[in-house]
Amino acid sequence: MKVALIGLGSVGRGVAGMLAKKDLGITITGIADSRSGLIDAGGVDIPALLARKKEGGLCGDDRISSADVVKRADYDALIEVTPTDALSGEPATGYIRTAISRKKHVVTSNKGPISLFLKELRMAAREKGVALRYEATVAGAIPIMHTLEDGLAGNEILALYGVLNGTCNFILTRMAAEGLTYEQALMEAREMGYAEADPTYDVQGIDAAIKLVILANTIWGNGVKLEDVDRTGIDLLTADALRLAEDEGCTIRLIAEAIPRKKILRVSPRIIGKNHPLVVDGTLNALTLETDMAREITLIGRGAGSVETASAIIGDLLYIRDRYVQRA
Amino acid sequence: MKVALIGLGSVGRGVAGMLAKKDLGITITGIADSRSGLIDAGGVDIPALLARKKEGGLCGDDRISSADVVKRADYDALIEVTPTDALSGEPATGYIRTAISRKKHVVTSNKGPISLFLKELRMAAREKGVALRYEATVAGAIPIMHTLEDGLAGNEILALYGVLNGTCNFILTRMAAEGLTYEQALMEAREMGYAEADPTYDVQGIDAAIKLVILANTIWGNGVKLEDVDRTGIDLLTADALRLAEDEGCTIRLIAEAIPRKKILRVSPRIIGKNHPLVVDGTLNALTLETDMAREITLIGRGAGSVETASAIIGDLLYIRDRYVQRA
Repeated sequence: MKVALIGLGSVGRGVAGMLAKKDLGITITGIADSRSGLIDAGGVDIPALLARKKEGGLCGDDRISSADVVKRADYDALIEVTPTDALSGEPATGYIRTAISRKKHVVTSNKGPISLFLKELRMAAREKGVALRYEATVAGAIPIMHTLEDGLAGNEILALYGVLNGTCNFILTRMAAEGLTYEQALMEAREMGYAEADPTYDVQGIDAAIKLVILANTIWGNGVKLEDVDRTGIDLLTADALRLAEDEGCTIRLIAEAIPRKKILRVSPRIIGKNHPLVVDGTLNALTLETDMAREITLIGRGAGSVETASAIIGDLLYIRDRYVQRA
Repeated sequence: MKVALIGLGSVGRGVAGMLAKKDLGITITGIADSRSGLIDAGGVDIPALLARKKEGGLCGDDRISSADVVKRADYDALIEVTPTDALSGEPATGYIRTAISRKKHVVTSNKGPISLFLKELRMAAREKGVALRYEATVAGAIPIMHTLEDGLAGNEILALYGVLNGTCNFILTRMAAEGLTYEQALMEAREMGYAEADPTYDVQGIDAAIKLVILANTIWGNGVKLEDVDRTGIDLLTADALRLAEDEGCTIRLIAEAIPRKKILRVSPRIIGKNHPLVVDGTLNALTLETDMAREITLIGRGAGSVETASAIIGDLLYIRDRYVQRA
């Protein structure tokens, strides 16, 4: 199987490295970072390219753009792992549309296109007979999409509850464990590289809400949007509130919930019993699905990370390889 | 898709009920309990049959045996859910061999055949081009087999750790929460229907060890047997030992572990930090997989129950329907 890889940040480098290391029968025939591109029908030399990138070089020729690679390279599946623009979804959505129109499968970690245009992109993919896979958009290494479509096949999903933002979970864990204020815990998260200089997107629950939108639309196809999520962040939470919860054997977590029968679509700090499976520490993510047969199933794993996210992307690639490309 | 269902205990009735309730395109053309059988090419009337069973009646004709249904009914997949005989694997193994020799797919919840004869049965199934699925043998509703083969595709599994026996977990949870002795907690488990009159199979770790054998052989194909498991039960655990662990913010759980690189294959009570994802309460099961890309993934869910186990079996049936029967 031939793939084009667009985006060479942490996730892209993780995917390239794993494809070079593991013998999965997958060859990269096109690749691009934000400033250059490379098309090589014989297969890109990944170790050499990653070494070049490590020294601050370009991945390819600066006269070749990401769009050129998407349009011109010969590949079976596009791997789109450029940074998320949650407002416009661009340029990722453009790349994905182009690939689908060329009858190429798409695997993406990009929350922009999937939270904004899932229905349209799915329809386009169905029309062209190709797969659109986005396991890596939600909860990093946790195979939530695979579990929904395969592991829990036949189950009706009644509700979902998730700890979907590692930054918030780290801050809340530290506030509870050490009695820190929100500001102190945020500073620690920044020092550890878990929080951005501007943490708004994480601490106000926007990131968790976008992931909730992706999950809800995937499960129920109900066309919900970010504006539909009732959202409260953790930035106004006091050390006192956490202490009160801890005194009762509970703690506080930023929980994303979707319960269609109750018309609930919400991200908010919730008091939760410490023995509850969703109470995970540090930057972990966790998801509980409430179903009609399996009842509650909880999945816990790393919500981010280069190789962890590569796991989700490679799982999607193998799905496509085994179900589409090898049969063709 | 046509199925034959052998075994009408709690699991079998759960499966039959769900197949009748859900419109999955699956018809039961043969069915048997321990004393009678019924073959009906037009599809068995499930609600009528379940009502008959509820009043203590037979499911069919007492001149038709389970073996007759397996041999003579017209079906695509056999659902084998008779009680486990961990020593001989019979009569389940015989039914499964017969179905495979007739080129029928097999779905089973029976730990006997799978822990004893997985390699042989897999080879026979491969030879005949049929599927052998056994999601329900380990950890009830948790889709562990689907996660191994699909959700974590591409990952190398380095180790696994599991809480695989609900009875032991219930006893340990109650000992810790209420300071009960082992005997008191066991009595409570019996009263709630979580422990058998003879609890040996559960409390000495045999059940967990059998599940560990199934998992290890599935993941690594290393042909391990029950005798290879280094096994210690919970029946000699004192309330004092639990109290000491709790004093340190820890607790004790019966953990099944397989770590091939360290040649560890073990079931034993272990002291474990209370915040560890594997620490689940009551009759829940939990499994942590250590992998090369996704790192640690933990799955938590109900380890037993009629409808919960039906979830696993129906997931396997849909896997067969979508990948084999619909393509044929």
